Amino acid sequence: MTKINKWLWATALASSVSIAVAADALPTEAPAPADNPTTPAKVALGKMLYHDPRLSSTGTVACASCHNVMAGGEDNRPVAMGVNGQTGGRSAPTVWNSAFNKVQFWDGRAESLEAQAAGPVTNPIEMGIKSWDDVVARLEKIEGYKKAFADAFGGNAISKDTATKAIAAYERTLITPNSPYDRYVTGEKDAMTDQQVRGMNKAVELGCTGCHSGPAFNGPGVFQKFPVTSNGMYQAKYNFSKDKGLAEVTKKSEDEHMFKVPTLRNIALTAPYFHNGAVKTLDEAVRVMAKLQLNKDLSKEEIADIAAFLNALTGEFPKQEMPVLPPTPGSTFN
Amino acid sequence: MTKINKWLWATALASSVSIAVAADALPTEAPAPADNPTTPAKVALGKMLYHDPRLSSTGTVACASCHNVMAGGEDNRPVAMGVNGQTGGRSAPTVWNSAFNKVQFWDGRAESLEAQAAGPVTNPIEMGIKSWDDVVARLEKIEGYKKAFADAFGGNAISKDTATKAIAAYERTLITPNSPYDRYVTGEKDAMTDQQVRGMNKAVELGCTGCHSGPAFNGPGVFQKFPVTSNGMYQAKYNFSKDKGLAEVTKKSEDEHMFKVPTLRNIALTAPYFHNGAVKTLDEAVRVMAKLQLNKDLSKEEIADIAAFLNALTGEFPKQEMPVLPPTPGSTFN
Repeated sequence: MTKINKWLWATALASSVSIAVAADALPTEAPAPADNPTTPAKVALGKMLYHDPRLSSTGTVACASCHNVMAGGEDNRPVAMGVNGQTGGRSAPTVWNSAFNKVQFWDGRAESLEAQAAGPVTNPIEMGIKSWDDVVARLEKIEGYKKAFADAFGGNAISKDTATKAIAAYERTLITPNSPYDRYVTGEKDAMTDQQVRGMNKAVELGCTGCHSGPAFNGPGVFQKFPVTSNGMYQAKYNFSKDKGLAEVTKKSEDEHMFKVPTLRNIALTAPYFHNGAVKTLDEAVRVMAKLQLNKDLSKEEIADIAAFLNALTGEFPKQEMPVLPPTPGSTFN
Repeated sequence: MTKINKWLWATALASSVSIAVAADALPTEAPAPADNPTTPAKVALGKMLYHDPRLSSTGTVACASCHNVMAGGEDNRPVAMGVNGQTGGRSAPTVWNSAFNKVQFWDGRAESLEAQAAGPVTNPIEMGIKSWDDVVARLEKIEGYKKAFADAFGGNAISKDTATKAIAAYERTLITPNSPYDRYVTGEKDAMTDQQVRGMNKAVELGCTGCHSGPAFNGPGVFQKFPVTSNGMYQAKYNFSKDKGLAEVTKKSEDEHMFKVPTLRNIALTAPYFHNGAVKTLDEAVRVMAKLQLNKDLSKEEIADIAAFLNALTGEFPKQEMPVLPPTPGSTFN
């Protein structure tokens, strides 16, 4: 990919295009799968479910707890914290623009937002409900959900399938357009600072955009090995290689240390970094990536320029009304 | 109080007033203290702080976690759950209409919303930050908060005092008017069902509204002993008397088992019930209150009527836009 990208870049430079860019602007709408077209009723239901802590065993953890849409779409923690203060080994990825990921989870084990949404609810260290049958039973006791599911899907519709479809439909609305970068590539030349433009050019030149390409900067490809080069001193410092990535699920040697290429959109808001959240600052994340993936030692200035460019990928967050969660009148939630 | 209330009631019945009511309609605005007038900038800041989990040691618990304004203003759990899955002995009270409480917390130990807001943040089993100095230091690292505090209070304004004032200012906007009861007492005779009217009359007749009086049904008085009469079999079942109420703080014998009279507004949404969240349903809560506070054994029909009336106290929840939490760009939250 790196070579092709460099070629495109060179072509752009040589052509009559007035500004060379790393990728197109972010679309303002996300495509939906044929079996789950986005509708207002589904989005409304999905927004309720997404924010409802009753989808956890303790009634304290909602999807939004770790993927906070009032912030950068995650929790700014090294690793996520589920019910009863439990933690796993991975950092919560941002939900913003996740509709543009080709696969979901750090290890890419889910092929759709729908499939992803089913996971955390019954993960014992995340939301901790025993089974989706238990989730459905809980939702069926809540009159307001009966109506909301009927509005979205018709009839007696509460199921794992419909709940995850509604959550995915809501997530497809979570898009952050009009970042300085987007405004820049659509012709507003002053939208990025000189330093940000310099950082963009450097990122392309180095090959960062070989994997982090396309409007969401998450690749034409889907997976990438991390680390690519010898882990060296960073292994001792950040323990990146403990997590075998996709191979943790597939147990195949070819999947070892393969991870989904994460989006760079809003990355300035989503510290700490990497699958295990081991790196606290964006500068250090840039330094580490250049060394481990491209075997390049960057200067302080180069790092600052690239970090400035990455700050230009912070988009506009759409205004959202808080959902009103349907009550369980006269009784406790479980 | 009970006698006075009965007298008012009898007067109303005997007078030319067309409908007799238990209390006035809920005001749509809450009074603010002289040193903290409500302003839009304070409310906006307070809404951010209220929803910001960075006000907890783990970055996972916000005020809104236990006092959820997307729901009935609390968590529908028996007792609240703070950082690292810790629980205490008391159920989270609703934040809705808390502006109309004369004192705050179950034991009434805080005399204002401002004083209340300071508590949970540094309570080790709630939000768990070591000190307000640490909270302030954390907030000062967040550029967006510097601006929001300056907008609300001017200058270099981040402090415990201003943070709690802003949260209180936001909470004063959390009012749920136009319940069926409010519409009934302002002349819309069909707003309550016959059963709800019957329940209201029964509640007044029994003396419930002796303590639960006024627009928020939380009394002209402030504290009440609970239980008043012998705890009997309910002590074995619900262990109400373990918690000594205000005496837990003051250590005075006269404060033993004294609790703030809680509002009945939206009570149908806030199961489970009582200071320790031991009672799951509204029907049982009515039965228990009649027995322990008034020494009355209610029939099933009377309980159903009163519960129906209490459902008429569910108000309209104002639409709220989600706050956008100011980021900590390029670094983790702590």
